[in-house]
Amino acid sequence: MALKVHGTVGSPATFRALAALHEKDLDFEFIPVNLSAKEHKSPQFLAHKNPFGQVPVFEHGDLKLFESRAITKYVAEAFADKGTSLIHKDPKKSAIQTVWTEVEAQKFDPTVAKLGWEIVLKPKFGMTTDEAVVAEFEKKLEPLLDVYEKRLTESKYLGGDSFTLADLHHLPTLQGIMGTKVKSQFDARPHVSAWASDILSRPAWVKVASMLTK
Amino acid sequence: MALKVHGTVGSPATFRALAALHEKDLDFEFIPVNLSAKEHKSPQFLAHKNPFGQVPVFEHGDLKLFESRAITKYVAEAFADKGTSLIHKDPKKSAIQTVWTEVEAQKFDPTVAKLGWEIVLKPKFGMTTDEAVVAEFEKKLEPLLDVYEKRLTESKYLGGDSFTLADLHHLPTLQGIMGTKVKSQFDARPHVSAWASDILSRPAWVKVASMLTK
Repeated sequence: MALKVHGTVGSPATFRALAALHEKDLDFEFIPVNLSAKEHKSPQFLAHKNPFGQVPVFEHGDLKLFESRAITKYVAEAFADKGTSLIHKDPKKSAIQTVWTEVEAQKFDPTVAKLGWEIVLKPKFGMTTDEAVVAEFEKKLEPLLDVYEKRLTESKYLGGDSFTLADLHHLPTLQGIMGTKVKSQFDARPHVSAWASDILSRPAWVKVASMLTK
Repeated sequence: MALKVHGTVGSPATFRALAALHEKDLDFEFIPVNLSAKEHKSPQFLAHKNPFGQVPVFEHGDLKLFESRAITKYVAEAFADKGTSLIHKDPKKSAIQTVWTEVEAQKFDPTVAKLGWEIVLKPKFGMTTDEAVVAEFEKKLEPLLDVYEKRLTESKYLGGDSFTLADLHHLPTLQGIMGTKVKSQFDARPHVSAWASDILSRPAWVKVASMLTK
């Protein structure tokens, strides 16, 4: 059954889904969705792809999924024997991995995506960066990265000793923020810095990130 | 092996974890954490319970978990044969359930928790409700509940034909908001309204919610 991803180059959520598919060495069709033309808000897209009008949307035969972290989880489980194993099978290891997957979704993403919006995206759209918001979220990031530093002293990856979805989910926002002054917060913490370099240089992610320069 | 929950009565995240444990008919020890006394920020708690200094924390023998949605997932999987089945075993049904679990975490919770903070909690703490924020988030909730209404026309529960974690995760924020004027948005949508009444009246949830009046 053919796999399809409807998404947009540069969309962090799209890139999250693509990273999982490449880690799994899967062939799939990428169908670009033109956000500028509001294709994702068309009645067709809302009715048949994602009622929230967002990318990515993933199709596997008649199964249609949205929400990038739901897509990666399905891909990791449905194609467990292909490519990189992105999940732990042992229930306790799996539970720890889920804890750190939640930390990404509940803590890292809201903080780093906000910084990315202010520092990277607003200037791109001709809007003015709100320095007070940047300062507020830079301050929030410090204790968060302190916890990451401690965690990465105990295990090589967030979810345990091997690379899993708990790490992979960070990639799109991490990539964006490492091109800004906020990188210094990562550099200041040796384990966080090594972890970031490690996961950003994975071939599957390099393949995804290279779509930006094509 | 004994199960323990370190948590606080009234904390939405604690209540989310407790709801799962009661649905599973599990015996566990509830260890109150006094947030006013900042017990959750003590060096002991940070080092041995949750490095982020939050409740709940769940223990199953030597396994220690934080993040409420990671706890419910572990409980649902590790005790699959006890009480209510909170997850689908079929991979495609499970994937759809995960989509709606993500919708709760990424869309419902940030909107409804914000409204609850402004309307319920701020007055309780002697702070002033920001009506502009209330209006902004009430407006965000409308299209979200429209999608819920459509979804609940297709299946009785968000994650499929049976009650799962995709529904359960909504309970703490849903309970809080139904005592406010925002309830009218739920009442205006027949399927959403029926779903909310249904899940809020589940015996396991009633047991959790009754802790507030003890």
